[in-house]
Amino acid sequence: MDNFQNDLFLRSCKCLPVERTPIWIMRQAGRYLPEYRAVREKADFLTVCKTPELAAEVTVQPIDLIGVDAAIIFSDILVIPEAMGMHFAMEEGVGPVFTQPIRNEADAKALRYIDPFADLKYVIDAVIMTKKELNGRVPLIGFSGSPWTLLTYMVEGQGSKTFSKVKKLIFTRPKLAHSLLSKIADVAAAFLSAKIESGVNAVQIFDTWGGILSEDDFKEFSLTYIQKIISQLRRNDEPVIVFAKGVHYMLDKLARCGADVLGLDWTINIGKARKKVGDKVALQGNLDPTVLYAGREKIEKEAGKILTLFGQGSGHIFNLGHGIFPDVPPENLKVLVDFVKKESAYFHRAGE
Amino acid sequence: MDNFQNDLFLRSCKCLPVERTPIWIMRQAGRYLPEYRAVREKADFLTVCKTPELAAEVTVQPIDLIGVDAAIIFSDILVIPEAMGMHFAMEEGVGPVFTQPIRNEADAKALRYIDPFADLKYVIDAVIMTKKELNGRVPLIGFSGSPWTLLTYMVEGQGSKTFSKVKKLIFTRPKLAHSLLSKIADVAAAFLSAKIESGVNAVQIFDTWGGILSEDDFKEFSLTYIQKIISQLRRNDEPVIVFAKGVHYMLDKLARCGADVLGLDWTINIGKARKKVGDKVALQGNLDPTVLYAGREKIEKEAGKILTLFGQGSGHIFNLGHGIFPDVPPENLKVLVDFVKKESAYFHRAGE
Repeated sequence: MDNFQNDLFLRSCKCLPVERTPIWIMRQAGRYLPEYRAVREKADFLTVCKTPELAAEVTVQPIDLIGVDAAIIFSDILVIPEAMGMHFAMEEGVGPVFTQPIRNEADAKALRYIDPFADLKYVIDAVIMTKKELNGRVPLIGFSGSPWTLLTYMVEGQGSKTFSKVKKLIFTRPKLAHSLLSKIADVAAAFLSAKIESGVNAVQIFDTWGGILSEDDFKEFSLTYIQKIISQLRRNDEPVIVFAKGVHYMLDKLARCGADVLGLDWTINIGKARKKVGDKVALQGNLDPTVLYAGREKIEKEAGKILTLFGQGSGHIFNLGHGIFPDVPPENLKVLVDFVKKESAYFHRAGE
Repeated sequence: MDNFQNDLFLRSCKCLPVERTPIWIMRQAGRYLPEYRAVREKADFLTVCKTPELAAEVTVQPIDLIGVDAAIIFSDILVIPEAMGMHFAMEEGVGPVFTQPIRNEADAKALRYIDPFADLKYVIDAVIMTKKELNGRVPLIGFSGSPWTLLTYMVEGQGSKTFSKVKKLIFTRPKLAHSLLSKIADVAAAFLSAKIESGVNAVQIFDTWGGILSEDDFKEFSLTYIQKIISQLRRNDEPVIVFAKGVHYMLDKLARCGADVLGLDWTINIGKARKKVGDKVALQGNLDPTVLYAGREKIEKEAGKILTLFGQGSGHIFNLGHGIFPDVPPENLKVLVDFVKKESAYFHRAGE
C-alpha cells in the first residue's frame, strides 16, 4: 500500500473523516495551463498520450502548479476502441474521429479483446512513471469511458448532436448493441484492473453521453454495463467513481451500482442529491465550469454555495461539474482551489 | 372566438376533459416531409419564413399529411433579434449565425424595440393566411424563444458547445445581461401578443438552452424573464406553453411561472413529473425523438409507456421531447400519431 502525504481524496471517496474537503478538477492536465501548451508545441495530443514520459509530465503539472489533491493520468477514453482495432485520428476543431465507424456484425466481430499490458502498454508505463514522479504526494486516478459512451463514438464516428446512428442501432438492432456493449465492458474492466495493478489508486468511469438516453434506455444500455465493469474489477479497496453527465433521473439507482463515488454535473443540487442517496456513496462535484470565467468574488461565492449545500461531514470531493475549459485563466482555478482548501475545514470540525 | 372542428389540444392545455390525448410534434413542418423539401427546393429557409404564402403552406402540410391536432406557425426564434437590428444568415451545416454578435453596452443599446405589426409583418401575415387555410380544422400555435435562449445566440453569434461568451457576460457583467434580457422579454411579449391578436390560439416559449444553467442561474437569468413575458401577454384565454429543455431541476417552480402547459424533454419521467406538479399545469411530451428511427413495434411500445406513465385523466398533450429529426421517415411519425389517437382513448374514459 502507498503511504500518502495527502490521502484526503481517498478518505473522502470512502466517506471517512477528513480535515478539509479535497479537490481535483476534470481535465486538470490540459490546455488552460501554459506549461501543458508548451509540451503540446513539441507533440500532438495523441503523441502525448502515447509517450509515457510526456503523459507523466503533464499529469503531474497541476499537482505542482495548482495544488490539487489528486492526479489523473493523462490519456483519452478512445484509447480502448483503438486498442480493439479501430483507427482514430484527432481532427483540429472536430475532435477525435473514427475513420471507419462500426456499421454491422462484421465490424463488431472484428473488434479484438485486448491484453492491456501489451496493447495499452503506453498507458501502463505512463502510470508507473507518474507514480514515481508523484512519489506519494497525492493519489493517482485512472479512467475509462463507460461502454455506452465508447459505443456512441464507435458508431457515430465522432461527436454528434443527435446521435442518430447509435440510437438507430440500439432501437433497431438491440442484440448487436448488447453484444458490443458487453465486449467493451469486458475490455474496460481488464484495462482498469491493469491500471490498478500498475499503481492507480482509484478509477473513474466517464459516462459522458448517458444523459441522452431516456430512463429505461439508460438502465438497459448504460447502467447495466457500468455495473458489469465494476463487478469484474480486480481491486483491493481502490474506489470507483462513476460520472454520468446529465443522468439526473437516476441518482438513486446509480448510488447502488457499486460505485464508491458519484460525480455530479452542475445542474444538480448537491444538497438534494446527498439527501437522495444518503451516506451510501460519496459525491464529487459540481461547480459550473464557466464560473471560472468570472472574478474571485463570484468564484468564491459559488464554491461556497456548494460547500454549504453539501453541508457538514465527509464524503465530498470538490470538482467542477464538467471538464475545465481551455480558455480559463489558471489563476482563477488557483483561486477556487485555495478557497476550497481553506473554507471547507469549517464543514469537517468534529462534533458538528 | 374560433369554432374548431378539433379543439382537443386547447382543452388539454386547460386540463379540461377530452375524448383522447391530442398530439402535435415540434418541428412538424420540416425537412422530414418530402412536401416540405419540395417547397425548400424553390426557396431557402429564410425566404420560406419571410414569404407568408410559403410559410402558411408548410405550416398546414403536417395537418393534411400526418393528421396532428395542432398547427404551429413556420418561423424561427431568431426573427426577434433580427427585427431588433441584428443581421443573421443561415450557414449550411452550421445553422443560424449572427455576423456581429453583441459584445458591449453600445451593441446592446443599438438593439431596437419593435412594432411587431410593422417589423415582423411577414409573420403576422403568415398567421392570418394560415388561419384562413386551416379554416377551423385545428388550433394554431405561435412561438418565441425565451429571452435567455435568444441572448445565448445574440452573444455567441451561433450555436456553441461551451457557451463561454454568454456565461462570461452573465458572470462578469450581470447588469448588462439583465438589461438585455429585460429588453428581449419586452419585445417577445409584444410579438407574442401581436400573434395572438392576429389569430394564434396558443403560444409556446422555447427555452432551448435553459438547461446549461445551474439552478440559481436559471432562476435569475431565465425563469424571471419567462415570467416577465407571460405577465405582459395580452390574451384572452389562449394557453401558454413553456418548454425548458434540460431544466429537470425546477419543474415545481416552472409549474408556478404562469404557464398553462409545461413541455418535457425525454429524460424526464412524465409520471413522476405529473406527481410533482399536480394538476396545476398540463404536461406536453415527451417521447425520445430518436425512437422514430425504430419500427412500428418499438414506437408503439415507447408511446404506450408514456401514455401509461401519465395515466388516467386530462392535461396531457403528446409530443416528442425535442424537435423531430430531418431523417425520420414520415410514415414512422404517422405510426406514432395513429397509435396515440387510437390508444389514448382508454385513458379518458369517464369515471376512470
